[in-house]
Amino acid sequence: MILILKQTANQEQIQALIAKLEARQLTVHYSRGEQSTLLGLVGDTASIDIDNLRADDAIEDVKRISEPYKLANRRFHPLDSQIKVGERTIGEGFFQVIAGPCSVESAEQLTCVAHSVKASGATFLRGGAFKPRTSPYSFQGLEEEGIRLLLEAKRQTGLPIVTEIMSDSQLKDFDEVDIIQVGARNMQNFRLLKALGYIKKPILLKRGLANTIEEFLMSAEYIMAGGNENVILCERGIRTFETSIRNNLDISAIPLLKRYSHLPVVIDPSHAAGITWMVQPLSRAAIAAGADGLIIEVHNDPKHALCDGAQSLNPQEFSKVMEDIKRRANFEGRQFDLK
Amino acid sequence: MILILKQTANQEQIQALIAKLEARQLTVHYSRGEQSTLLGLVGDTASIDIDNLRADDAIEDVKRISEPYKLANRRFHPLDSQIKVGERTIGEGFFQVIAGPCSVESAEQLTCVAHSVKASGATFLRGGAFKPRTSPYSFQGLEEEGIRLLLEAKRQTGLPIVTEIMSDSQLKDFDEVDIIQVGARNMQNFRLLKALGYIKKPILLKRGLANTIEEFLMSAEYIMAGGNENVILCERGIRTFETSIRNNLDISAIPLLKRYSHLPVVIDPSHAAGITWMVQPLSRAAIAAGADGLIIEVHNDPKHALCDGAQSLNPQEFSKVMEDIKRRANFEGRQFDLK
Amino acid sequence: MILILKQTANQEQIQALIAKLEARQLTVHYSRGEQSTLLGLVGDTASIDIDNLRADDAIEDVKRISEPYKLANRRFHPLDSQIKVGERTIGEGFFQVIAGPCSVESAEQLTCVAHSVKASGATFLRGGAFKPRTSPYSFQGLEEEGIRLLLEAKRQTGLPIVTEIMSDSQLKDFDEVDIIQVGARNMQNFRLLKALGYIKKPILLKRGLANTIEEFLMSAEYIMAGGNENVILCERGIRTFETSIRNNLDISAIPLLKRYSHLPVVIDPSHAAGITWMVQPLSRAAIAAGADGLIIEVHNDPKHALCDGAQSLNPQEFSKVMEDIKRRANFEGRQFDLK
Amino acid sequence: MILILKQTANQEQIQALIAKLEARQLTVHYSRGEQSTLLGLVGDTASIDIDNLRADDAIEDVKRISEPYKLANRRFHPLDSQIKVGERTIGEGFFQVIAGPCSVESAEQLTCVAHSVKASGATFLRGGAFKPRTSPYSFQGLEEEGIRLLLEAKRQTGLPIVTEIMSDSQLKDFDEVDIIQVGARNMQNFRLLKALGYIKKPILLKRGLANTIEEFLMSAEYIMAGGNENVILCERGIRTFETSIRNNLDISAIPLLKRYSHLPVVIDPSHAAGITWMVQPLSRAAIAAGADGLIIEVHNDPKHALCDGAQSLNPQEFSKVMEDIKRRANFEGRQFDLK
Repeated sequence: MILILKQTANQEQIQALIAKLEARQLTVHYSRGEQSTLLGLVGDTASIDIDNLRADDAIEDVKRISEPYKLANRRFHPLDSQIKVGERTIGEGFFQVIAGPCSVESAEQLTCVAHSVKASGATFLRGGAFKPRTSPYSFQGLEEEGIRLLLEAKRQTGLPIVTEIMSDSQLKDFDEVDIIQVGARNMQNFRLLKALGYIKKPILLKRGLANTIEEFLMSAEYIMAGGNENVILCERGIRTFETSIRNNLDISAIPLLKRYSHLPVVIDPSHAAGITWMVQPLSRAAIAAGADGLIIEVHNDPKHALCDGAQSLNPQEFSKVMEDIKRRANFEGRQFDLK
Repeated sequence: MILILKQTANQEQIQALIAKLEARQLTVHYSRGEQSTLLGLVGDTASIDIDNLRADDAIEDVKRISEPYKLANRRFHPLDSQIKVGERTIGEGFFQVIAGPCSVESAEQLTCVAHSVKASGATFLRGGAFKPRTSPYSFQGLEEEGIRLLLEAKRQTGLPIVTEIMSDSQLKDFDEVDIIQVGARNMQNFRLLKALGYIKKPILLKRGLANTIEEFLMSAEYIMAGGNENVILCERGIRTFETSIRNNLDISAIPLLKRYSHLPVVIDPSHAAGITWMVQPLSRAAIAAGADGLIIEVHNDPKHALCDGAQSLNPQEFSKVMEDIKRRANFEGRQFDLK
Repeated sequence: MILILKQTANQEQIQALIAKLEARQLTVHYSRGEQSTLLGLVGDTASIDIDNLRADDAIEDVKRISEPYKLANRRFHPLDSQIKVGERTIGEGFFQVIAGPCSVESAEQLTCVAHSVKASGATFLRGGAFKPRTSPYSFQGLEEEGIRLLLEAKRQTGLPIVTEIMSDSQLKDFDEVDIIQVGARNMQNFRLLKALGYIKKPILLKRGLANTIEEFLMSAEYIMAGGNENVILCERGIRTFETSIRNNLDISAIPLLKRYSHLPVVIDPSHAAGITWMVQPLSRAAIAAGADGLIIEVHNDPKHALCDGAQSLNPQEFSKVMEDIKRRANFEGRQFDLK
Repeated sequence: MILILKQTANQEQIQALIAKLEARQLTVHYSRGEQSTLLGLVGDTASIDIDNLRADDAIEDVKRISEPYKLANRRFHPLDSQIKVGERTIGEGFFQVIAGPCSVESAEQLTCVAHSVKASGATFLRGGAFKPRTSPYSFQGLEEEGIRLLLEAKRQTGLPIVTEIMSDSQLKDFDEVDIIQVGARNMQNFRLLKALGYIKKPILLKRGLANTIEEFLMSAEYIMAGGNENVILCERGIRTFETSIRNNLDISAIPLLKRYSHLPVVIDPSHAAGITWMVQPLSRAAIAAGADGLIIEVHNDPKHALCDGAQSLNPQEFSKVMEDIKRRANFEGRQFDLK
């Protein structure tokens, strides 16, 4: 970390500042230039509050050199992480497809979708039991009953399940869930992230609609700092000025996350654009850019779906998309983890 | 709500669609044009899922005419709401200033700040006990002890207190708090919003960093739908492409929220830009544009603050800003609610 | 186009409005609902000014159904356009790679790069003669001399050249240029677009940093409306809230532009992120998502480049990227147009 | 400027880099830390291309300390600039209101509006002769005839005129115009900016829809670097994710521009939101935040305006808004420059 001092800073202020920094176990390198005086800080700067420093009368600006995250950082963990879920592996060398309905609506619907996505080659079943809806008047999910139905579908198909948690107060309901999803709107629900750090279950962490790559990795860091290193990152589209689609898939996020972190990266092409016909081209781009997997919405009857029908494929469409996905994952040398 | 049908939609599809809509108690107006066929829907369209409709084979697009929020909507509640907190009134005709430190750090700090902001004319005391921090390595607040100290400061100064909740699991700790704040990152923590709907306490709801005015009002609607109509809206800066300041205060939000809703609007000029010297010009703009109050960070010793020092005024600076605020609130004909 | 009338609109106002619309040769379909009255307009609505309509006392809102562009619209031109440049074809079935330095710096530099990119398989040579630089103190290009050097490099290598125009006042200097580029900052320089409509030369139109897909196609429409249908669309990254890279490549733009328009789409992975190591993953994503070509910066000595060194590949790096590009274009069934 | 070197940089690379920098007349301060090596550069760093430096193998990152603009920079010009237009003064202590129609449509329309805005207290007349329209099918302005009508209205009312230029090729038509406006879409039309640097006429430079404050000041610098220091900055709303209004007025731009630059700042509340009823609250906020003037659209018959009718006030509305503006400019101690 580099502190750029004000030209008006006097020796007394500078000495006081250096003393304050050294008291925090930091080594301070002093460098007086003609135009500016700099202090280079060496040590555990991740815990320093930059805003706090900026309030110091002697400091003009603060520039961070190293990233504020450690456990999620590839610098300290050069090899790709692999996350195990039962017999499946997410990350390095493998390619996984998580598929299923936006929300669990009934035993019939879920069983139907689960069997069909399995037949097409999906390796995980997704489905929402607790649904974060913008409107209080929209369908809010079957809640605990939804999780029961997911577990029943898992028993029938053998597919591990992925479902979303909305609050730390719900954790007890997720005991048998294979992968717990944190939705985009909860990416900075720090209370929830902390609670997920104390369990060992894999977490699928979705990027917030307008959160930077650094903030995304800091949220992963929250979970990892508690002791749970099983974090899967999921890019699902960001909010921009564009109005013709719901969100813009940030394809750059894949190479960026891969460079800065060792965690697996999964892409959600269904939520990204919010339109059925965009699922295939966005899936293709994601595979080519290096994603470790996809999470795709499939509904047996999209036009009667209780949520997000416009972005859900039906089983026939999904089956075709899956053929294409397999051919492309194969071209990229990724192993399709089918048992 | 208007449904624009596809040019390829045949009579069978259209009849099936109309039947489905009428089954939901909606009146359907059919209008066949040369270029397009339209269905106008009358009835309780707020509960309709637009994405669901868009998945219908016969539908090209869906246009909402009326807003999806009801309780927060000025259409159905033309007069400005006033929210009572003890002897104080927030909203129509009154102007309130909530001041205090970003986070509660100690009894000494809080008492010092509380007495000084009261002396300058602040009418509420703010202070964070549970702190949502981007980094797990930053100071996370004094938690329950922080609330205890706030209550002690209230006893000493008589200032009602405002403090932030982070999860529905914490609700029991907020029994004696006067106004519960929901932070920007939790604006769509729907589990929390629902829980706050079941109590009667005033809620200061901050707008998310990248949430639209409609989404903001839908979050207010969540709380109100549960039965708690005491919602105060707070704009605190939005995320844009600009890099020279932390966020851009959305000054348009004031007239927009006032037009679409009857709820009081408070502005946070401290978080908006994240810079001390911007607090005054942004406060001036907010008052002129019609805000009902301000929430300002004040710290007895900003350069040693444990968070957000760069945006906190010291008591002397705050005192000067308050003189200016009073003069301007008076110019606007707002009543300063001092006891 | 649908006009949603105000509930307060009286019959006199409505009749006056209908008369005004019919005077513009539009057929008006009147539909009175319980909640709202609608007017559906049929005819040449592309020339209607929506803002103008919105100012009418009787109108609550205006919803466009059809796109405001015609010549660029796939509805009226279902087949993909192919644009011929000498013996090469841009569009449907072909894949082109345009490569070369950000700016032309000297005969030696340009000749060296031109020969090397040709050897690696590039099919067009790019190079800036007139440079749009953010700072007036940065290198502004060799101007006319730069174009002379490009033409010399073309004579030596046979590669057609692509170079940027900055104003309609420069048109005479571009007589021998094969493809004229319009830069992102000039996407809505309407005077320039109009001037380019009166010539027949292919135009590579770059999307503005914060322009929507519709605005992008409207700018193409400007050129086409003048009579020049040889427009190649180029997505080069959009401006968002993200700070770790210069811009975010909008991968969704490829399927969107392909759906709404028949014009070819080329991607610029160099400017998109502004970082050398991102060129390869973004190129891969672009090819997979359906791009018709790439435009890539290559410099013989990036660290001494006079502009954009950080995003330029050197010839060895480019050669490796080209091998990968060829393999992938081949996988997608695209023809590499090499003579 | 500070260069942060890579940990892998060897002495040979570092010495070569230092030699290269010193060859550009820069003084280099070397500082070797444990974690990183820094080079501090002193001298004329404004002309250094940061991207160029970033391509150097030895450099990890580059941090600018001082702003890249000089002539527009308050550091080197501490007092507020005042710009003279005939007998009027724009800047420090004065408050000006520029009013008139979006586009000049006829002699009758313009004369009518000109007389009425003068009567209400406007001090400049605006009107578009050359109109930058998103669609080639929209009204493009009366062009040269429009300028002739503006000059006639000036003769009748004595109001100096402000009108927009779209290309350097049009400069000869603007000889008698008092203030030349550069529109938001041309803020980075560098060819135009350069041409405007060679004349002495005041330039009203509008901020681009998605341009940072630094880019805005760099565009002012382009004009000033040519020798024309008469630049008036105009904020007119920025593009964000919000969909309920056209653009978001960036109120923070006023204090930011005032701090970093000495140039006057004028606000355009009409284009900012694009809605008539927002003109008043946004004008109020702008005056309170320190603007030096306003530019407001007024049309004698907004519902028949050929462009931007939805945001134009009629003369009666403008007259009321002006009363409010005068009262507020007076409250702020600004002098209303009425002759």
